[in-house]
Amino acid sequence: MKIFRFTLLTVMVAFSAVAKADEGMWLFNDLPLELLKQKYGFEPSKEWAEHLMKSSVRFNVGGSGSFISSTGLVLTNHHVGSDTLFKLSTPERNIMEVGYLAKTQAEELKAPDLELNQLVEIKDVTDEVKGAVKSDMTPEQAVAARRAVIARIEKASLDATGLKSTVTTLYGGGRYHLYLYKKYTDVRLVWAPETAIAFFGGDADNFEYPRFCLDATIFRVYENDKPAKIDHFLKWSANGPDEKEVVFVSGHPGRTSRIFTMDALKYQRDVAQPAGLTNLRRQEILLQQYGLRSTENARRARDDLFGVQNSRKARLGMLAGLQDPVVMAEKAAAEKALLEAVNADPKLKPLAGAWTSISETIKKRTEITGKGVAVNSQLFGLALELVQMAEEDQKPSEQRLPEFSDAGRESLLQQLYSEAPIYADLDQVLLADSISKTLEQRGGDDPLCQQILAGKSPSERAAELIRGTELASVEYRKKVAAGGLEGIKSSKDPMIQLAMIINPEVRRQRAVTEQLDEQDKQAYAQIAEARFAVHGTSVYPDATFTLRLAFGPVMGYEQDGQQIPAWTTLGGAYEHEKKHAGQSDYVLPKSWKDAEPSLVKNTPFNFVSTADIIGGNSGSPVVNRNGELVGLIFDGNIQSLSGNYVYTEKQSRSVSVHSSALREALQVVYGASHIVKELGK
Amino acid sequence: MKIFRFTLLTVMVAFSAVAKADEGMWLFNDLPLELLKQKYGFEPSKEWAEHLMKSSVRFNVGGSGSFISSTGLVLTNHHVGSDTLFKLSTPERNIMEVGYLAKTQAEELKAPDLELNQLVEIKDVTDEVKGAVKSDMTPEQAVAARRAVIARIEKASLDATGLKSTVTTLYGGGRYHLYLYKKYTDVRLVWAPETAIAFFGGDADNFEYPRFCLDATIFRVYENDKPAKIDHFLKWSANGPDEKEVVFVSGHPGRTSRIFTMDALKYQRDVAQPAGLTNLRRQEILLQQYGLRSTENARRARDDLFGVQNSRKARLGMLAGLQDPVVMAEKAAAEKALLEAVNADPKLKPLAGAWTSISETIKKRTEITGKGVAVNSQLFGLALELVQMAEEDQKPSEQRLPEFSDAGRESLLQQLYSEAPIYADLDQVLLADSISKTLEQRGGDDPLCQQILAGKSPSERAAELIRGTELASVEYRKKVAAGGLEGIKSSKDPMIQLAMIINPEVRRQRAVTEQLDEQDKQAYAQIAEARFAVHGTSVYPDATFTLRLAFGPVMGYEQDGQQIPAWTTLGGAYEHEKKHAGQSDYVLPKSWKDAEPSLVKNTPFNFVSTADIIGGNSGSPVVNRNGELVGLIFDGNIQSLSGNYVYTEKQSRSVSVHSSALREALQVVYGASHIVKELGK
Repeated sequence: MKIFRFTLLTVMVAFSAVAKADEGMWLFNDLPLELLKQKYGFEPSKEWAEHLMKSSVRFNVGGSGSFISSTGLVLTNHHVGSDTLFKLSTPERNIMEVGYLAKTQAEELKAPDLELNQLVEIKDVTDEVKGAVKSDMTPEQAVAARRAVIARIEKASLDATGLKSTVTTLYGGGRYHLYLYKKYTDVRLVWAPETAIAFFGGDADNFEYPRFCLDATIFRVYENDKPAKIDHFLKWSANGPDEKEVVFVSGHPGRTSRIFTMDALKYQRDVAQPAGLTNLRRQEILLQQYGLRSTENARRARDDLFGVQNSRKARLGMLAGLQDPVVMAEKAAAEKALLEAVNADPKLKPLAGAWTSISETIKKRTEITGKGVAVNSQLFGLALELVQMAEEDQKPSEQRLPEFSDAGRESLLQQLYSEAPIYADLDQVLLADSISKTLEQRGGDDPLCQQILAGKSPSERAAELIRGTELASVEYRKKVAAGGLEGIKSSKDPMIQLAMIINPEVRRQRAVTEQLDEQDKQAYAQIAEARFAVHGTSVYPDATFTLRLAFGPVMGYEQDGQQIPAWTTLGGAYEHEKKHAGQSDYVLPKSWKDAEPSLVKNTPFNFVSTADIIGGNSGSPVVNRNGELVGLIFDGNIQSLSGNYVYTEKQSRSVSVHSSALREALQVVYGASHIVKELGK
Repeated sequence: MKIFRFTLLTVMVAFSAVAKADEGMWLFNDLPLELLKQKYGFEPSKEWAEHLMKSSVRFNVGGSGSFISSTGLVLTNHHVGSDTLFKLSTPERNIMEVGYLAKTQAEELKAPDLELNQLVEIKDVTDEVKGAVKSDMTPEQAVAARRAVIARIEKASLDATGLKSTVTTLYGGGRYHLYLYKKYTDVRLVWAPETAIAFFGGDADNFEYPRFCLDATIFRVYENDKPAKIDHFLKWSANGPDEKEVVFVSGHPGRTSRIFTMDALKYQRDVAQPAGLTNLRRQEILLQQYGLRSTENARRARDDLFGVQNSRKARLGMLAGLQDPVVMAEKAAAEKALLEAVNADPKLKPLAGAWTSISETIKKRTEITGKGVAVNSQLFGLALELVQMAEEDQKPSEQRLPEFSDAGRESLLQQLYSEAPIYADLDQVLLADSISKTLEQRGGDDPLCQQILAGKSPSERAAELIRGTELASVEYRKKVAAGGLEGIKSSKDPMIQLAMIINPEVRRQRAVTEQLDEQDKQAYAQIAEARFAVHGTSVYPDATFTLRLAFGPVMGYEQDGQQIPAWTTLGGAYEHEKKHAGQSDYVLPKSWKDAEPSLVKNTPFNFVSTADIIGGNSGSPVVNRNGELVGLIFDGNIQSLSGNYVYTEKQSRSVSVHSSALREALQVVYGASHIVKELGK
């Protein structure tokens, strides 16, 4: 389970109604202390929370992780690390597939463009951000004013602290917090298992339970070419959690939409999710087709294909929630009750306009869904980024599109100048399909489409562009960037020229969406006010890919009349293989077959808990009351996927690798006792 | 390559402009004798044509074939026979995968619902059909009148001859011909190879060339439980064709749209083809996902999955043609020239209104595309058929929907009461997805959707319906049919009840489409008139899944600067396997590995010719001037796919299995000398 890497539509986030049971992705600066005390008799100290917060890390590729040693070791999922594993792989050394073990620090492999962030402080900047936007501003002015004040706050914080500083919108616009992160950009691969065990059962078992996956990878952060000295890291639990024991998940859930109004939910159900799924299925078939041509093609497409399949299955789960009349009736009843309370109170009554405002933006969103220009090509993406950077750099930082502000420049350039390989043949297939899709979306007679084609068919045009561009070279990209806007305008590179043609439309679409988002931000801020007034303030905001705490007991569940146990065992993996004989996704790697006689078979392998997670939580550490590592989140079951809109406790479960399985596998299967010795030390 | 089994939209067919070079799918009662004489110095006799016509057969599953012995042997493609191979397979005996060889006639396996048709006569009934539709009729009246006259003609012919009688619309409504077929319903499997060699290279190699596929299967037709005595069958050529030798293809091309107006083509490009592809990709992923769960699931989904993947690749090729500005410019220029000629001639000028009429129907078609109810479930399909049959049987035959007329009843019941297995678990997956898709298409709040769901989620509802219905039993279906309309109305079977709920909307949508089709029929009849007037009458009509003759020399082509040879060899298959080591679609079956030392490796395997074919031609015999079998059509290359809209000779090729390869494989690989002895005898 990953945070969606292929964002199709910007959607707004907001905050949830009164929490049920173990529902909640709580802010570290606003933990539900009363609830924890009442339900679990647990009173976390300030130090407990701070230690857990600072032991947690965020991966820029969209995932979570944790420090697990004073010597800079970082634990995450194989499927979070896979972007890097893929970039470090070659046809001769397919790390992604066969895994990796550095026997010494000298063998640890530097990731080409991985950035890890450790949250060190949160400041409330709500008044400053809200104060900058006046009620008489047009949406366009409001977007600019909000952008400017956020850029100023981030820049001032960066200058004052040297820390990566990001303003986060919470409760859909009800609160604004400034997050300060320590940044690690020298990240090296220490150990990764084979895909065959990390993703045992493949796409069929993904989002299912029981599971038998060692979905784990270990990196190490460096500073000044030496392992970074880490103060806050997690100790290893001796035996992991007991059944029914409450556990805590500290990670970065990517996005939930639990506060959505009914109109917004119906837009998701009838328009946005179906459109997103259509795009994902298209990409999935395209990547499969490309991969069928040769084993090397299959290797090149693998990581993208995993990501797309994962998103497709996740979205199907979300849509299933929205299409369930019972779920929708529950949401409708809650909205009705809130609106009745708002309308009954003269002070709150003006807030009811927020629902109308959102219905208006939904109408506009419906009109533009699936009409855009969306070019899915790395080389085109680089061209567009260079074009827009040159344009944006003409303005002062606070007026630029946020990703081009001074505060974010370092992270931007790490991506732009990444030495990770670009496969031109794959990129050509993606580009040809993107052009074809743009024709489908806008109609073949559309003037922009005609300009894009330049008289050729989509596939001929893509071939010509990929053949002609030099952007695969990092040196060339640096040269183009150095040439500034003048250099861009006179560039003979066909991909830069294409980006120049498409750029105005991309900017126009973005402006339209940003203004709709701004309108929603103001509306959801009002809905937040209404909810605070009616339900009180002890609520958590919807997920925003920032650090949250979730919790709940380790606990099985009933499904189709069967009791699903809380955990599986290492021995179960071998039985699972037997049961699926003849299926290529269920073949254990050789290392596991060799190690079978030596493994303690009843070691717990994967376990489930009721903790409330979602995509982006992948790689999150699971800890016990003592703050010791007991597990590693890697998935949610099928029933958890409607959690995007509503949390249900009955069957919804988060799925983790058990800490004991991880240690046993490192020791026995991978012979990595040098790593085991470092764990928690 | 198959005719598309998943028809998404009814589209009209018409006839082509002046033929280029080897373009043309010619009517057997209107062969281009002058052209053949001029270009190839060949003057086929009446007997030559009649013999070839009567040696050809049509498969009701959407494909072609030929008689190859007096003892009833029929040759077709493995992928045409696969529907039957699949239905005859069980988990224990997977004929579809591992092939089959009947060592004696007693071992020949009866197909559960295969029907073969041999065309024996064509009559022109244009005046009678056209005369029944008056110019002052509404589209609704016109649909009814045309339906009635056609039903009358077909019934009278059936009663008089005992032959299956079908009126075919040609030139989009310019001509109506009555086709009389001898019907074979006792068809038995004699020999099929392994899928691994029939579809060597899998989806990646499909529609590609060079190829190495033994895409062949042999059936035998029976009458009165004995091999049918066949008068017209093809002799086997001694050595097959030479390079540059002209060959003839006699088969049933399913559908082309070469006469489409520019507006109709743009509708295909911007609306219909993208919508069709979206549906196919959805089905493809769904079937893959189902198949991933177990090897038995994979087996159950295999045949449908092949069909969907084949259609997806074919449609992508068609769309590529439509998105090519060069192709569209050529079509636009031809239309412009014709319209100028029409407008310049006072007698023709009134015909110009036909283009406007088509533009109007296109607007209406655009509005309804992707808004329908389309339930893709075998059990639901049976329920709907029973419901509609009971309703239709209340009316006289000529007023019924055509498939329920008396003339077609025997073929209908063969399908309705087929003993072929229905896999309830697969059907449940398809039904759940269909319900979900219907919600997406109509919006979840749509009243019909709410009725379909009955308060449950799509997957819960599908589970309940599949659990509750008894329609998997043939006996039960017969009982329901016997109960008539009263029985249907009081039925407690939940699937019948669902069909009753959905039926009115299905009928409403069908009526709308039929009226648009009728309007187009009248318009294309006018365009046909204009074309006859401007270009003369020696033209072929667009494909209609009726027998046609195509021809052209065996000839390679140039691609990306490389010369692609006219044929491959058996030895090449072994090299192809080596080149694709590690890819599961490129593993030759054991039989071929065992036979390798004994095979004559330079035997031609597959070859290409310029003959003009399209989906539905699969299984067509390829013959030489002497009417001897030299090959078996099984595919067109990628470049041929835009042939739906325009024929191009430069690279477009039809792909065949060489007759020598077939004989060599039967003899050496499969040890089927008893079959070889029968060939052509």
